[in-house]
Parts: sequence; C-alpha cells; structure tokens
Amino acid sequence: MKLMRVTNPEDVFNIISEHFAALDKEKLSLENVGGYYLAETIYVPEDVPDFNRSTVDGYAVTARDTFGAGEGMPAMLECIGEVLMGRTAPSIKKGQCCLVHTGGMLPAEADAVIMIEDTELTGSMLQCLRQVAPGENVIHRGEDLKKGDVSLFKGRQLRSPEVGMLASLGITAVDVHRKPVVGFFSTGDELVDYSKRELKPGQIRDSNAPALLYLAEQNGAAVKYGGILPDQFDTFLEQSRTMLEEVDLLVFSGGSSVGTRDYTARTMQELGKPGLLVEGISIQPGKPTLLANCNGKPVLGLPGHPVSALNIFAIFGKSILDCLAGRKEKQFKPSIKAVLARNISSRSGRTDYVRIKLEETPDGLSAVPVFGRSGMLRTLAEADGLLVIPAEKEGLSNGEQVEVEIWE
Amino acid sequence: MKLMRVTNPEDVFNIISEHFAALDKEKLSLENVGGYYLAETIYVPEDVPDFNRSTVDGYAVTARDTFGAGEGMPAMLECIGEVLMGRTAPSIKKGQCCLVHTGGMLPAEADAVIMIEDTELTGSMLQCLRQVAPGENVIHRGEDLKKGDVSLFKGRQLRSPEVGMLASLGITAVDVHRKPVVGFFSTGDELVDYSKRELKPGQIRDSNAPALLYLAEQNGAAVKYGGILPDQFDTFLEQSRTMLEEVDLLVFSGGSSVGTRDYTARTMQELGKPGLLVEGISIQPGKPTLLANCNGKPVLGLPGHPVSALNIFAIFGKSILDCLAGRKEKQFKPSIKAVLARNISSRSGRTDYVRIKLEETPDGLSAVPVFGRSGMLRTLAEADGLLVIPAEKEGLSNGEQVEVEIWE
Repeated sequence: MKLMRVTNPEDVFNIISEHFAALDKEKLSLENVGGYYLAETIYVPEDVPDFNRSTVDGYAVTARDTFGAGEGMPAMLECIGEVLMGRTAPSIKKGQCCLVHTGGMLPAEADAVIMIEDTELTGSMLQCLRQVAPGENVIHRGEDLKKGDVSLFKGRQLRSPEVGMLASLGITAVDVHRKPVVGFFSTGDELVDYSKRELKPGQIRDSNAPALLYLAEQNGAAVKYGGILPDQFDTFLEQSRTMLEEVDLLVFSGGSSVGTRDYTARTMQELGKPGLLVEGISIQPGKPTLLANCNGKPVLGLPGHPVSALNIFAIFGKSILDCLAGRKEKQFKPSIKAVLARNISSRSGRTDYVRIKLEETPDGLSAVPVFGRSGMLRTLAEADGLLVIPAEKEGLSNGEQVEVEIWE
Repeated sequence: MKLMRVTNPEDVFNIISEHFAALDKEKLSLENVGGYYLAETIYVPEDVPDFNRSTVDGYAVTARDTFGAGEGMPAMLECIGEVLMGRTAPSIKKGQCCLVHTGGMLPAEADAVIMIEDTELTGSMLQCLRQVAPGENVIHRGEDLKKGDVSLFKGRQLRSPEVGMLASLGITAVDVHRKPVVGFFSTGDELVDYSKRELKPGQIRDSNAPALLYLAEQNGAAVKYGGILPDQFDTFLEQSRTMLEEVDLLVFSGGSSVGTRDYTARTMQELGKPGLLVEGISIQPGKPTLLANCNGKPVLGLPGHPVSALNIFAIFGKSILDCLAGRKEKQFKPSIKAVLARNISSRSGRTDYVRIKLEETPDGLSAVPVFGRSGMLRTLAEADGLLVIPAEKEGLSNGEQVEVEIWE
C-alpha cells in the first residue's frame, strides 16, 4: 500500500499563496463593497473636513481673547450670533465670538472653541470662565484626510470604517477584487441527499454539503452545489470539468473511502496542470486532504469525516478564499484565554486541532476538550472553538493556560 | 445647562436584556438557517449513524478471531468479499472477514475493523498482523446522536457544525427567530448625502450611514435607510414614527449638535412608552448615546462623531441585535495578545476604547495606540482593533501585556 506523502500546514499556506492570486476586479458601488478587498489605491481628492470644524457645542473665539481668564476673572466677549449648521460662519472681530454647534464651521478669524459649560451668557455678553488654547476643540481643515495623500492602499479590506472614509470623500464606487465562487461536489456511493427521509441500510445523509456551503458563505464566497457524484470515473471527471469552468475554487467532499479518494485524486490530476500539489497534511483531524492547481484554479479534496472536512475548510479553504479575494495583509487570529481542564496528548510532528467547550468557573474560563471521533459531528457542535497544539509539542497539561480560537 | 446622566456599560447591557426579547419565529429551510438562533428544541428522530460504521479502510472482523495475533504469528481469516458503500453488509461467520471502506456498514456479526496496513491478503486469505479490540475503528449505531436525545436546544446559534448535524438527521427546515430589521436615519442640517460631489461651506458628507448599514449587516440584520432627517421637529417625529412601524430597531445617527440631540431625545420620548432609558454612557468614545424603549421596540440615538457612532453601534447596537435575534448564551470576545507600545491615561469611572494598530516586532506583536479625535474616521480605519480600559483603571503602561479586540 502506498504511503501518504504529508505536507506541513505552514508549507500548505505557502503553496496556496505561491499558486493562487487575487481574482480580476470589478467596480462596485459603496453600499455593496463591505468586506471586499480594494483592487486600486485610493487617493484623497479633497481635504476632510474642508473647513475648520468645532468638536463641541460652544463659542467660536480667538484664543488670545481668553488668555488669562478664570472663574474669578472671566474674559468678556460680545456674542454676535450663531453658526447655522451647514452654512458659512459669520465673521467675528477682536473681542467677539459666536455660538457654534458640534460639527459647525468656525469663522475665519476664530481659532478655538470654548465649551458651553465653561461660559455664562447674559444677553449678548459672554463670560469665559477659563482660557482656551489656539486649536482647542477644533478639527482643522485636512486634519482627518489631506488632499493628495493615500487614503487606502490596494489590498485593504473594506470594513465599516473604510466604507465611512470613502463616503466622507464622496467616493461612490471603487474597484475591488470580485468575490470567489466556490463549487461543491459531494462524493461517495453511501451518501444520499439530506432531504431523504427513509434511509436504506448502509446509507448516510450528506451532512457535509450544507455545512460547508454555509462555511464558504461565511468566508465571503458565493456557492454552487453540484450534488452527489457517483463513483464512476468518467461521470466524475466530466461533471467536475464542467463545474470547474464556472467557479474559482472547486471542492470535493464527503467520500471517505480509499476508492472515492482515488477517483478524486485522479480527477484532480486530469483536470489541468500542474495537478496535485498536496496529498496529505500533517494535521489532525484532516490528514487525508488533497490540493491541486488545475490550470491556475485551486481544487480541494476534503477528507470524508465531517469534523475533518469542516476543520480543513475552515483553515485551508479559508486561506484559498482569502487569496482569491485579494487579501494582502496577514490575518490576526483572535482567541480566548482559558485554563485547560485535562491532559491532552499529541503526536510530535503533527499539528492537532482539539475541540474545546468553554465553561465558566469561579477561577475563570475552563477549556474542556470534547473527545470523540472525527466522524461525529456532534463533537464539533458541542465545542465553542478549537485549541491548536503545534507540531513540536507532545501534548498539553491539565492546568496550563491555553488560547482557544472560537468557531463562529 | 442640564448635566448628562450617564449609565455604566454593564447596566446598559442589563437594561437591553430586561427590555427587549427575541423576535417572533419563522420556519426556514436548512440552506438558509446559517447564523440564525433556534426557536425550538430539536430532538434526535433516529439514531445517527443508524448502523455500525467503519471509521477506516480495512477488514470487518470478529475481534475475538484476532486475539493474540502479531507480526510473528498472524491470525488467518477467510475474506468472503466486500461491503459495497451504501449497501447492506454481507454476513460473516467465525473465522471470516470482509473488506470494508471508511463509512461502510459492518456485518451484524463483526464488532471491529482491522486497518488495511495491519493486514496482508493472499488470494482470499487475510493475515492479521495485530489484534484488534472489540469496537476498534467502529462508530456504533447511535454513537453520534441517540434517538430521543436533545440534539440542539432552543436559543442555540446555527453555525456550520449545527447545520451539518440537522442535515445528518434529515431535518430540512427549523423554526428560528427571524432576522432583525434595522431602520437608520441620519440627522443634522450640516449633512448631505455622500454622493454629493461639490460641498457648500459648512457641509459635511454623511459618512455614518453607509458605514453603519454595513456594520448592521455584518451583525446579522437587514437594513432600511430613511435618509437625512431635517432639523424640524414635526417632520422628524412623523418620519420616525412611520419607520418604527416597519422595523425592529430604529437608529438615529449623524447629528452631533445639542439641537439635533434634543430633537432625537424628544422624538424618542414621543414615539412610545416607557421612552428614554439611557441618556449617556460612561464610555469613551461614545458618551452622548441615547437608548429608548418605544412600545417594546428599541430606539438608539448614536453620538454624532463617526468613531463614536461606530464604536457604540459595535458594542450596544450589536447587543440589541443579539437580543432580538434570540441569542441566549453569553458571547465570547476573542482578542489578540500584544505588548503596549505607549503609556495611555484613562479617567477612572469611565470605560475607554482605545484604537490600536498592531505591529509585528522581533519580540511579538506591539500594540500602538492610534491617537486622534473621535471626529476623525481615519483613526479607526488605521486601527486593527480596540483595547478596552476598564472603568476602575487609570491607564495602562508602556510594556504591559494587553488584549486587543480585532475590528472586522
């Protein structure tokens, strides 16, 4: 029997970034760009704000007029009126001020704003109960964004603050890398569609397809489901070829037997050059994973056990999708601190992903491993997240502080 | 001038969970339920798997037939054939075995599977080079899910493993709490739609609306945008009343002046009972936040500064949405460990959210605060996440280990 050649997870990530690149770009209007990656660098077309703005409710003043003022010796200024929101501010002279609201424009002559609570108004005479420094409570023209500067570099993901920044510049559409389309096939003669009510002996409902389709959508992809492929090589190859033309990433899932795996591997070799890149990964659960580059398109063969399939797609499927979507920057992997509640052994040379249930205790969060075979989806559904044991470790001890990545 | 009555963040969370509850339920088909919260408890209708399955490629055997076997003294068994995937397994007798693939059904008489690599087949004679224990490499009927047990409790969020579990049970539709609809209004006479190319003096483009709409969608809501409300009380109230009837959460955003804030507060009082619950939160940025319960529906008045508005919506808007969506369980807040690169001061009694840029250094991640006013959206766009300084702390020191929540 042929031994499986396994690749380290780090090497798999490198293979992914060497072989696959951001998809072509499309122009999307601002209300649809959230989550996408920029395919152009955006320059600031004009100063933001394009006038000096107050950051508080108060009175626009010349700071010098308030110097030396205090509760015992207020500075007296003449209030000549109010800055209407969205309008040009009136002019003030030495010894004058005007009411200004948060976000309102400062008169050209004013260089500071004194907050309402630091003043007392009697008729049109304003007492300033403290002094203000030049620039105090003012956002200056161009202080947020300066004309000609880079606003956002190519490759940046457009989160809510970036969407807001583009709006503040009046930019209504940008070039982004288009969203990847993922095609899914289930494989294996034991599988039937999950909608089948009565099972025959030996049959299993295909639980991977709906779970993986949702996981792909969560990771920013559009999905296409091709159904369950029969264990017949010609049909298998033909349907895969047709699907591959329509998608950016093709995923096989479900069949866990060696026979199905062989079909999948042969198909991946036939679909295009250079073919298979990875025939197994030194990871648990999920070792029997296949990855190919078929004429520039990634094809992923997931292991059959449900927990393994989801784990591998969450790690490597996501990495491929990020690559296609145009992610340039390293992604941070946030985690939750907890104290391990059991000893866990792990084989050196293999990266282990342990399912963890987090439990609150008087001493903080306790990380309780959910043991069970990777064929049992319940063990992942019971888990709040995963604990990674790196390849160089031979396990972790009860009481150790660990970091758990939450499964969302 | 009336002083703002401020509420602690913890109290605001409690007010939210006391006043607002999960929305009514709807039945959704399995391909659409990802991310929703269950509005019913799901029981297991049948054993999963409903037959004893092999977890490996190997030979189904009676474990007793292999006892004592080893490389030097293999147990000899007659191989009577193969279990076809998705078919009933053939019968075996004492001293017999049959080939079984991963996921295949075990013959009724078999109680273990010996892996292919531990055997040698010559003709129909199989040499077992080791012994196997009863149950080895087998998932027993009902081992994943047992008929009659609770599969998933009401209130559970349906992540990918839960979607897969429901599929494995043949459940094609479930009752979930419906998705909240959020209505947004921008307020403030200085604001113009972000698509406006040429600004008049004193005008500002409305950057909050598109940023908040995306943030609401990211948090599982459907959105409705009502445009920019004028600073005229009657129109303000009338349009708000109409919108509130169509949505589950109404949000006002954009106006930062006291005048607009007053309109918003008066509107929130008029829209329904009991009216205003929160008039300010001891948080920075985002103190001038309003929250009301108007005849059972939440109405949120965000502060005008863009960073404050996004911060408050990410914390409290999300909490309201989670409540409406039916979240029962506490949510974990994953974070990234980093070393603080500066001293940060913070006023005791106020919870501070500091924008942080994470930088890689030879010693690990460095957390660099992005200073700047909350009116400047750039400061949030430059940040990878936020660092929370609890109310009881008076700051953090350069070199301290901190935890940064990533802004996604």
